Amino acid sequence: MKVLLVFAHPERRSLNGALRDVAIAELEAQGHEVQVSDLYAEGWKSAVDRADFPHWPEGAELRVGAASKKSFETDTLTGDVKAEIEKLLWADALILQFPLWWYAMPAILKGWVDRVFAYGFAYGVGEHSDKRWGDRFGEGTLAGRRAMLLVTVGGWEEHYSPRGINGPIDDLLFPINHGILYYPGYEVLPPHVVYQVDRFKEADFERAAENVRERMRTLETTAPIRYRRQNFGDYLIPAMTLRPELGEGEARGFALHVDTATAL
Amino acid sequence: MKVLLVFAHPERRSLNGALRDVAIAELEAQGHEVQVSDLYAEGWKSAVDRADFPHWPEGAELRVGAASKKSFETDTLTGDVKAEIEKLLWADALILQFPLWWYAMPAILKGWVDRVFAYGFAYGVGEHSDKRWGDRFGEGTLAGRRAMLLVTVGGWEEHYSPRGINGPIDDLLFPINHGILYYPGYEVLPPHVVYQVDRFKEADFERAAENVRERMRTLETTAPIRYRRQNFGDYLIPAMTLRPELGEGEARGFALHVDTATAL
Repeated sequence: MKVLLVFAHPERRSLNGALRDVAIAELEAQGHEVQVSDLYAEGWKSAVDRADFPHWPEGAELRVGAASKKSFETDTLTGDVKAEIEKLLWADALILQFPLWWYAMPAILKGWVDRVFAYGFAYGVGEHSDKRWGDRFGEGTLAGRRAMLLVTVGGWEEHYSPRGINGPIDDLLFPINHGILYYPGYEVLPPHVVYQVDRFKEADFERAAENVRERMRTLETTAPIRYRRQNFGDYLIPAMTLRPELGEGEARGFALHVDTATAL
Repeated sequence: MKVLLVFAHPERRSLNGALRDVAIAELEAQGHEVQVSDLYAEGWKSAVDRADFPHWPEGAELRVGAASKKSFETDTLTGDVKAEIEKLLWADALILQFPLWWYAMPAILKGWVDRVFAYGFAYGVGEHSDKRWGDRFGEGTLAGRRAMLLVTVGGWEEHYSPRGINGPIDDLLFPINHGILYYPGYEVLPPHVVYQVDRFKEADFERAAENVRERMRTLETTAPIRYRRQNFGDYLIPAMTLRPELGEGEARGFALHVDTATAL
């Protein structure tokens, strides 16, 4: 497989940097080809602004969605964004690696999403009508590819457990896994989360490295999260609500959008 | 009251810009004092990196938490960050205004949080031991102040309803409301969300403006979301899990951390 790893940590000599090396070494040992987008090293620009759309008429009100659509269609996005889109189209699998800061991705990585996930590429794809709400959530430009998160967290695993004060980790990561990765078509693998990284010792590192290696060895075979596809009957369109007869039982909130009932 | 509005939209002539004017005019009509942090206009730096900690030893590995702690203690954070901290300490109420991009805040606003919410200021406050896990979630530097989100969304309200495909809006905003605002002590008001903003017409705007005015008129009196306080018996410490006898009934996930049972 071809694998793109997007790395969002400011320090190469960090635990994140070390785990990145472990991941890449294992992927290459498995015969995969790897490219890295090291956002800090590349000085990635985070904020979407007028400079992202050089052909948007000077003086005109900037409408981000419209400008993104026009720029993608006319191939006038900036070079840094175009390069990332090429890498995404090259890769069979995408890994986003980052430390969880304030329960979300670091700004620089959010800026990679905000800028690279252009209208016509990652959203605004396919027919939009009262009968069909675009190719997304199970379809889209990136369908057939795999994605996973590799996340480090300062707190304890228990603090992110089903009754932990921070909220369950799967719910905290849902806006990324479902809203950013599943949206344009990726099959999303369960995230790999490393906890208590502020107090890592040497023995912890060896264990953590082996866990990362195992995830890299199984990148091609791990079963994805079974998010429900938008356009195959589970949702009412255009309300985009889950059909009343589905998701019964204990599921609430985000968990409704994972199909735990249908046989594989 | 003194109110700080943090504005994160790249276009001043947008709906967000117009609603910002409406909000400020109404706050001032009510006798409140308003300051604005216009992140795009100020060219806010989004990414946390070595330049944020000018006194961190050159050549040494950058440990973000430790560098933030040291810089806050020694008053050597950068001028832009110190100015924002001063504004937060000045304000009785904080409003974060932004468009929802990819189910989260724009990168520039995440970068404001990542950089301004320093160790010793917004986290790492109070005793950290096996008996007490810091002053947070109900206590902290910003306790006694109010905060609310003012958010614009392209999709329909139904798409963000309890069974909507995007997930419930309250869950999508939980990592911000609970994880970013409640964490350092704010009383968090219910968010004000404006939907379907991509198809706004003049009549929509008048209604939207009036709704924003109403929220500004009641900024001082609206009841906050009843998140559970960390250090007052609801959680087991240090596991930080909700006590088994609490949160029974239908609550799952994030909803467990809202107290719907205790009498006011």
